Amino acid sequence: MDIEILTIGDELLTGDIIDSNAAYMAERLLQIGLRVRYMSSTGDSVDQMEEAFRLGLNRAQIVITTGGLGPTDDDNTKKAIVKVFKRNLIFHEEVLVDLKKRYEIRNIEMPAINQNQALLPQGAKFFPNKHGSAVGLCISENGRTFISLPGVPQEMKQILDDEVIPFLQNISDNESITVLKLRTTGTGESKLVELITPKLKLESGVKLAYLPSYSGVDLRIISTAKTQEESKTRAYDLKRYLDSVIGKYVYGKDFDKLEEIIGQLLKDNDKTLATAESCTGGYLGSLVTSIPGSSKWFIGSIVSYANEVKINQLKVAEKIIEEHGAVSEECAIAMADGCRKLLDTDYALSITGIAGPDGGTDEKPVGTTYIGLSSKHGTTATRFNFGTNRNANRIRASYSALEMLRHDILDIK
Amino acid sequence: MDIEILTIGDELLTGDIIDSNAAYMAERLLQIGLRVRYMSSTGDSVDQMEEAFRLGLNRAQIVITTGGLGPTDDDNTKKAIVKVFKRNLIFHEEVLVDLKKRYEIRNIEMPAINQNQALLPQGAKFFPNKHGSAVGLCISENGRTFISLPGVPQEMKQILDDEVIPFLQNISDNESITVLKLRTTGTGESKLVELITPKLKLESGVKLAYLPSYSGVDLRIISTAKTQEESKTRAYDLKRYLDSVIGKYVYGKDFDKLEEIIGQLLKDNDKTLATAESCTGGYLGSLVTSIPGSSKWFIGSIVSYANEVKINQLKVAEKIIEEHGAVSEECAIAMADGCRKLLDTDYALSITGIAGPDGGTDEKPVGTTYIGLSSKHGTTATRFNFGTNRNANRIRASYSALEMLRHDILDIK
Repeated sequence: MDIEILTIGDELLTGDIIDSNAAYMAERLLQIGLRVRYMSSTGDSVDQMEEAFRLGLNRAQIVITTGGLGPTDDDNTKKAIVKVFKRNLIFHEEVLVDLKKRYEIRNIEMPAINQNQALLPQGAKFFPNKHGSAVGLCISENGRTFISLPGVPQEMKQILDDEVIPFLQNISDNESITVLKLRTTGTGESKLVELITPKLKLESGVKLAYLPSYSGVDLRIISTAKTQEESKTRAYDLKRYLDSVIGKYVYGKDFDKLEEIIGQLLKDNDKTLATAESCTGGYLGSLVTSIPGSSKWFIGSIVSYANEVKINQLKVAEKIIEEHGAVSEECAIAMADGCRKLLDTDYALSITGIAGPDGGTDEKPVGTTYIGLSSKHGTTATRFNFGTNRNANRIRASYSALEMLRHDILDIK
Repeated sequence: MDIEILTIGDELLTGDIIDSNAAYMAERLLQIGLRVRYMSSTGDSVDQMEEAFRLGLNRAQIVITTGGLGPTDDDNTKKAIVKVFKRNLIFHEEVLVDLKKRYEIRNIEMPAINQNQALLPQGAKFFPNKHGSAVGLCISENGRTFISLPGVPQEMKQILDDEVIPFLQNISDNESITVLKLRTTGTGESKLVELITPKLKLESGVKLAYLPSYSGVDLRIISTAKTQEESKTRAYDLKRYLDSVIGKYVYGKDFDKLEEIIGQLLKDNDKTLATAESCTGGYLGSLVTSIPGSSKWFIGSIVSYANEVKINQLKVAEKIIEEHGAVSEECAIAMADGCRKLLDTDYALSITGIAGPDGGTDEKPVGTTYIGLSSKHGTTATRFNFGTNRNANRIRASYSALEMLRHDILDIK
């Protein structure tokens, strides 16, 4: 079954917006065994949409669009649907009532223009939208399924996850595919390959992919078989093997986030964390506090970009910096130690490195980074090299630091 | 002239990678007056590429692809070109010599597989790649121009900017289009509209677009006319008008970054900066230090997520927090003040707010944020409301803080 994702909006074709909707949808679809074959973007005009809809319906069995469902004049998706499918728009009382109710709760009068949102193509199924005024639409005709979702990411995601995915799971003739993802960080792809490959046996229909990004390497298993049971068994057999050889590097599965897992671990153990950052400049603190409720476990960060801050605030001895440099095991240990004492926490992480593009030496090339971890059991630091890309460096260092902490809390050797 | 951007890679269709190449290319092309009409993504197989290449050449005059130009077996772009254009691959000595030289400089032996990179379709023009082994390709045939670039963003950007853009500027029959972008931050779209609209007169062929994002609102002028001179005159007339009504909110043009401009201003004035962050958790420090060389002007940040850090490190009086709360004008002032003294800098910025999703009250709803600025002239704080999205909030607060500093340094009232 071929699937096309079609994102709609002039702002995509001008490059004003990076299309993150298409990737989100593709990943969610793959999780239920549906592979996307075509991805495209088109402009806001009815003509452009009509051309794109016809092409999509011609080459794919399922077409999913996002965008152009708002109530204003330049939202043309429904107009294009009317032309392509030759269906009139019909007023749906229940959609309007629901919309009005949501405005009432917020004590705001509904703008009259929103009445348009209750006009839907004849015979279309619709999916409720919890966060906005545009319901999702679904038209089935001549063996094709055409689904239109709003373009606002929050709205698209809710309707996709709550409505479209369960709906497609039912109608799809998908082969029995099982998709599993193991998430790792702090260890390079080549090291993982080295550990996994020697005893790896892939049964027929089972594929293993390495998906590296700045924040870590994900391992994706796709298992295809005649029956659901068979595909599941094979996928989980491989997962068990992976757990046995690289299990200690796996922090989560599917869409887990390391910063969320760390937060949960700290909360469960009633522990607190502080950070002392040099080259990351605050990125690690920002990452940890991206999780709502992080004030429960995160106390603060001392971003000691200048050496004076390391010396005056974190109490790193001047001698350490003179003798070993600010990017050294000794300095990372002193930073973590000083930070834990200063902010009175159970754990402190420190990061000091040469982010680049300049500042490297033969002994410590760009990318050399020391990460320290201090707890009541003592303080250690580990040396990493994250490469020459400044941005990648800072992200890798922050995730590696959290992974060190995860190992320590869970006592993983 | 219709243009298609075609990005290649299975990792796009599985949603493992968000396609940022297409948006980058579209924006650069628009700057020279070339509008993208089609954007699409296809998989790694020769079949999929062949189908996509033929469709592109059928509906667009210029097709630009990225990806699949590497030296390994699953890099199939050249194979698909051979099939579609019926041209053989020819060995180019000069490409290999250049590649070997670059390995020599780094004292590394060139992997033998890279010899493939010197095989190019007969009659193709090629564009050198400064950062990688795959040169860009260009085939002109039957009124169509087909350009293939590598998929690694750094390599694609260099070849596009240095080679493709000048090349297309020469061959294009583009109408005379002038595109200008003014970048603003710290002020909402509605406020800008209110200031701009009353006396706005748009000459024929001139369009003004508001492009809001978390980091600010860009204003884009597109002016189309019969001659280059006419389009330029009209675009700059509008720019002058915009400068007269909202000039103080404009921090830069085109692809300028506020964090870079702030860095330059601080460096030029030989001044230093520190930050005291609560709800942003380190994001502001991370933003400032994303610029290489920022150690020249940035000293550090005290991320005072817990009130104890505000009290113990930043010396915010306990009474202030008891009486006014940690999210208050008084606290923001005390944080900025304390930070500037503690880290001994010329400027200090502070941010304290309710990032959400919880923690709001009637008086201070989610999104309420106070930003403080301390300098030798004194300390002030301003109240903002950035809305209910936690992530957006933190980004908006950080950019607004930098914009306050810009106004102070340049003495903009």
